[in-house]
Amino acid sequence: MEDNFITIVEVGPRDGFQSIKEWIPTKTKLMIIKALYEAGFTNMEVGAFVSPKAIAQMRDASTIVQELKEYPTTVLVPNLYGAKAAFEAGAKAITYVVSVSKSHNMANVRRTPQESLEALKEIKQAYPSLHVKLALATSFGCPFEGEIPIKAVANMVRFGQELNVDEICLADTIGIANPIQVQKTLKALMPQIDRPLGLHLHDTRGMGLANAFAAINEGVSMIESAVGGIGGCPFAPGAAGNIASEDLVNMLHSMGFKTSIDLDKLLKVSELIKKHVSPTLFSRMANLPNSTCKGVSCGK
Amino acid sequence: MEDNFITIVEVGPRDGFQSIKEWIPTKTKLMIIKALYEAGFTNMEVGAFVSPKAIAQMRDASTIVQELKEYPTTVLVPNLYGAKAAFEAGAKAITYVVSVSKSHNMANVRRTPQESLEALKEIKQAYPSLHVKLALATSFGCPFEGEIPIKAVANMVRFGQELNVDEICLADTIGIANPIQVQKTLKALMPQIDRPLGLHLHDTRGMGLANAFAAINEGVSMIESAVGGIGGCPFAPGAAGNIASEDLVNMLHSMGFKTSIDLDKLLKVSELIKKHVSPTLFSRMANLPNSTCKGVSCGK
Repeated sequence: MEDNFITIVEVGPRDGFQSIKEWIPTKTKLMIIKALYEAGFTNMEVGAFVSPKAIAQMRDASTIVQELKEYPTTVLVPNLYGAKAAFEAGAKAITYVVSVSKSHNMANVRRTPQESLEALKEIKQAYPSLHVKLALATSFGCPFEGEIPIKAVANMVRFGQELNVDEICLADTIGIANPIQVQKTLKALMPQIDRPLGLHLHDTRGMGLANAFAAINEGVSMIESAVGGIGGCPFAPGAAGNIASEDLVNMLHSMGFKTSIDLDKLLKVSELIKKHVSPTLFSRMANLPNSTCKGVSCGK
Repeated sequence: MEDNFITIVEVGPRDGFQSIKEWIPTKTKLMIIKALYEAGFTNMEVGAFVSPKAIAQMRDASTIVQELKEYPTTVLVPNLYGAKAAFEAGAKAITYVVSVSKSHNMANVRRTPQESLEALKEIKQAYPSLHVKLALATSFGCPFEGEIPIKAVANMVRFGQELNVDEICLADTIGIANPIQVQKTLKALMPQIDRPLGLHLHDTRGMGLANAFAAINEGVSMIESAVGGIGGCPFAPGAAGNIASEDLVNMLHSMGFKTSIDLDKLLKVSELIKKHVSPTLFSRMANLPNSTCKGVSCGK
C-alpha cells in the first residue's frame, strides 16, 4: 500500500442504522450498501448479528449478508451465537466487540471482558476461516467508569494478539477522546501492536476529525466512519454520531492523502440516506448547499 | 500568561449575528453579550461598523458599544468611516478586515487589498489610541480565487507589521483550511510574526477543531470561535458557521489547556441563543441532551 493511503472503514449500515428506531426496509439497506461499495469502500460493516430484542433494526443481517455474497462484507458479533449465525449466512469477516470497561461490557453483553475474550477463543476454534477484527469499545472513556487507563487497553490488545486476531480496532464509543489523548494512547500502544490497527471515532463532542488527524499523525492508516455522520444515540436527538465519512474523505484528500473513495459518489449516497433513512445528517459536507460550495466556494 | 493558557476570542455577536437575517433586538443582543462576558470571555467582537445596507443586523453597533462601556469590546470595521463611527461610540479596539485575495476584497469592500491597507494607515493616524487587530480574510482559500499562496499572506502580514498593528489574525473565512495546511502556513509565517497572533476558524467542512488542534500544536494561543457555532451563510441553510466556542472550550479543557471560560455558564448562553436567536446550533456540546451527557456519559 502507498505510504499516504488511508483505508476508510464504512460503518454506517451497522453503527449508523442500529441507532435508528424506525424500521429501514431490507431493500433500502441493500440499495444504500451497494451505493456505498460503488463509491469505493472496500471495507464495510453491513450489519450485526445481535439479539433482535436488543436491536430490532439488525434482525435482517442474515438476508443482507446473503444478498451481498460478492462483496467484502464485515458484520459485528458480540458472542459465539452471533458468530455462528454470521458464518452460516456466509460472512467472511467479523468485528468482535469487547469493552475495555467492565461495567460497559456487563451492560452490553452481560459478561466480563475476560469472559468475552474466552468466547472469542471458542469462535476462533469453531470458525478458523473467519477474519476477526477485535474492536475494543470504550478505549478512550466509559459512560459508567469515566477515564480508562491505557494499561487496561494494552492488556486487552495483548489478549487479542495472543488469540491471533487479524486486526485491532480502538473504539471511542462515546466520542469523548481528545486529540492529545489519542496521541498518548497510540504512542504507548503502537510499539506493541503487530497487526493492522484501526480507530473507530464518534463526533459526539465535535472532536472526531481532530482525533482522526492526531491518529494519522501517529501513523494510523485505518479509520472508521459513517456516511452522513449517522450513529447518534436514539435517546439523544440532536447528538452527533460517528464521524462523517464525507467529512473524513474530504479532509484526507485536501491534506494530500489517498483513499479508495469517490467523494462525489459518496455525497450522492448521503442524499439517499437523507431521503430514505435520516432527515438529519451530521456531516458538514453533506449539508453544504450546492456543488460549487463543495469545492472552494461558499464564502461571503 | 501561563504556558498552557489559550485565549478564546468570542465572535458570535459579530460574525454569528451578522449571518442571521431576522432582526435580533438590541436588548436581546446585549443580554447575550453580557452573559458571554459573565461566562468568562475577555476578548469579544460585539458588532461591526459596516454599511447598514450591506448588513442590516449590525446597524445598532453604536448603541451596543455605548451600552457596554465597562466591558472590553472589540468591533469590526472595514474602512476609515467605520473606524470613525466606532471611535466616536467609544470603542477601544477594532478588528480591521482585509482579504488576502484581491477578488474577495473587491467583492467585500470594493477596493484592492493594497487600498484597504492604505486606509488602515489613515485610521492609525487619525485614531492612534485604537487597539488594532488586522484580520486577514481568505488566508487559507478564497471562494473566487481558490488556493491562496502563503507568500501572499506573508506580504499582508509584513504590511500590517509595518503599520504597527497590535495583533494579526489569520482568518479561514470559508472554512476550507485543512490541518496540514494550517501547520505549513504557521511554520512559514510564525518566525516572521512579532506580535500576538490569532486564528479565526469556521467549521464549514468539519475541519474546524482539527485546525484549532493543529494551530495549538504550532504554538498559537489565540483562537476565534462563536457560541453555538453560529455564523453560517444566510444563503446556505444547514451549512455550519464558525467553530463552536463550547466545543473548542471542551476540547481545550479535556486536553489540559486553560482558558478563562466557564463551560457550564457558556452552555447556558447556548440555550439563550437557541431560544432567542437561532433554533439550529452547530455546536456538538450544545446539542448533547443533558448534563450527564456533557460529562462522560451518553454511550450505548
